[in-house]
Amino acid sequence: MMDDAHFMSLALELAARGRGTTSPNPMVGALIVKDGKITGRGYHRAAGSAHAEVNAIDDAGDTAGGATLYVTLEPCNHTGRTPPCTEKILAAGICRVVVAMEDPNPCVRGGGTRYLSEKGIKVTTGVCENSARLLNESFIKYVTTGRPFVTLKWASTLDGQIATRTGDSRWVTGPESRAFVHRMRHASDAILVGVNTVRQDDPSLTTRLNNEEGKDPIRIVLDTKLSISANAKMLHQDSGADTFIITGGNVAEKKRKAIESLGARVITARLKKERIDLGALMDRLGKMKITSLLIEGGGKIIASALAAGIVDKVNLFYAPKILGGNDGVHVCRGKGAEKMNSGIRVKDIRLHRFGEDIMVEGYLRALNK
Amino acid sequence: MMDDAHFMSLALELAARGRGTTSPNPMVGALIVKDGKITGRGYHRAAGSAHAEVNAIDDAGDTAGGATLYVTLEPCNHTGRTPPCTEKILAAGICRVVVAMEDPNPCVRGGGTRYLSEKGIKVTTGVCENSARLLNESFIKYVTTGRPFVTLKWASTLDGQIATRTGDSRWVTGPESRAFVHRMRHASDAILVGVNTVRQDDPSLTTRLNNEEGKDPIRIVLDTKLSISANAKMLHQDSGADTFIITGGNVAEKKRKAIESLGARVITARLKKERIDLGALMDRLGKMKITSLLIEGGGKIIASALAAGIVDKVNLFYAPKILGGNDGVHVCRGKGAEKMNSGIRVKDIRLHRFGEDIMVEGYLRALNK
Repeated sequence: MMDDAHFMSLALELAARGRGTTSPNPMVGALIVKDGKITGRGYHRAAGSAHAEVNAIDDAGDTAGGATLYVTLEPCNHTGRTPPCTEKILAAGICRVVVAMEDPNPCVRGGGTRYLSEKGIKVTTGVCENSARLLNESFIKYVTTGRPFVTLKWASTLDGQIATRTGDSRWVTGPESRAFVHRMRHASDAILVGVNTVRQDDPSLTTRLNNEEGKDPIRIVLDTKLSISANAKMLHQDSGADTFIITGGNVAEKKRKAIESLGARVITARLKKERIDLGALMDRLGKMKITSLLIEGGGKIIASALAAGIVDKVNLFYAPKILGGNDGVHVCRGKGAEKMNSGIRVKDIRLHRFGEDIMVEGYLRALNK
Repeated sequence: MMDDAHFMSLALELAARGRGTTSPNPMVGALIVKDGKITGRGYHRAAGSAHAEVNAIDDAGDTAGGATLYVTLEPCNHTGRTPPCTEKILAAGICRVVVAMEDPNPCVRGGGTRYLSEKGIKVTTGVCENSARLLNESFIKYVTTGRPFVTLKWASTLDGQIATRTGDSRWVTGPESRAFVHRMRHASDAILVGVNTVRQDDPSLTTRLNNEEGKDPIRIVLDTKLSISANAKMLHQDSGADTFIITGGNVAEKKRKAIESLGARVITARLKKERIDLGALMDRLGKMKITSLLIEGGGKIIASALAAGIVDKVNLFYAPKILGGNDGVHVCRGKGAEKMNSGIRVKDIRLHRFGEDIMVEGYLRALNK
């Protein structure tokens, strides 16, 4: 029904309000509709707090009896940190449930809707499913593979350079693009850079939003030999998020202690050809409940991440500038594909504009179905 | 009036039918409208043939008396290869003339509309002016500066490479982009590449359109030392267009004769720091009535053209691919800007999609007003 799509799109908007705060849970939104009118709204705010369905039913009060529930993700049928939503739905007297997408977790998928059907509730699934999957692409990747959803971001000139030959990189893109990158950081559980980027740019890697409080992502630095300076800005700032320095082991104990005394956690990772094994690292980050990872560079890390096949999505910003030579710093460093046809394909491209900049968004693999 | 814009946009569509064949004249379209109905249509087909106004008035026949003429460029008031259009308009009994843009030639600008006004005809100017200026951007540049309008085109991966480290470049972009490049060639008076491109790709540089006959552009090769192979494909093909080899003089007379015996014209150009002086070359091409020039590469020529400041517009194609290293062939070669802020700005960007490819269209200088 037309109306179903309309109400579900509103529920999806509600869900998106949880962006950045629900991990490792998905974003979920719910609406109660009685006689064509919305009488209850809810969304999931944070892991451990009430699910969207519960918030919507509570918001609807007495009107929930005989009403329709729109929910962007299949209601849970198991007891986690909160009781099963299916029981709440039955107790409220909801008579129809419209679901955007099934729970992507293969262990519970379909359980909630099946249980509700068995109890005589009319269930419709798959309304606005594509939008729902897009909204929770990180969560879907995480629950189906145990690894974080990896987004790679770069900001280059139109001729593919992220800094000039003198290393100047402030700024490649304009303020609108940079503001969006801070929204991306807010939405990510963790952010990853190489130690070269720390050395050259001395970034804080925190989230600065314009008109609201942002959530800092966990900062992860790939630093095989633990060469990060103890004076790096990111080790001396007020942030609610942890800093992980990923090394290859075999580092000076004194340096390790110095870095750890600043509050960062030094982690020894598995190596592969003398470099951090990025696939194994993704498994490990997944075990730490990191569902989404934003890779911000530089060129060596970008190339390694692409070569390791860990990247799900790219957000490539292009400033309306041409440096005009090939002596600057390129977006990727190292050995590239030998044949044009063996380059990495970017699929499902969407274009966005941020001020005068262009952002190319695309996928390196199909979204899990 | 709303109607004026409507009829003018139709006249602009008619004008565009002359694309590729009117040079060194502009594309012009005209409509006769009587009592709200179109009774005559005309456009300028080729230099030396009738102007758009004349074709439209002839098409309208008796209905031109008391009608309105819509014309995309100010009617001429001087005798060129054809008599002045203003007299034709008066003789036909047209009572109102709507013009999109004044003649950009500063020597005659405003003369046609002023003359018509003096003769009692109601004249409106500036309807759909931006579209009209865009349509004839090459002509405007040419008549105001004496130099061709220069468009630079490249086709690269998302990480800014036009070929892999092994030189593989077939194909970067897809068939839709390549088809559009052939339309660009058709619309250009001349096309320019460096001798390295001839050596590496051995291109024909002709126009191959899908369902209609294309016009080949004049082929221009920058070849300071006349090193082009006498076996180059472009010297042995059936084409209605000339081939110019631009050298720095001081070349072997025997080689010159060999190349000229194949039908190409070897031209000695002024040098600047031992390279072809591109600014002076543009003046010379302008004197040869070349109003538009398409630069197709490679990296050295692209960088030289940008550095010389001769480029008006860029059409940058990006294939949805990442090579993943920096050992391929980059879009620009040589020394780039030292500071990010001193890079070349690309203005008024418009984005286009060709199949899976992206095309960034923009300007390096404002269009002449």
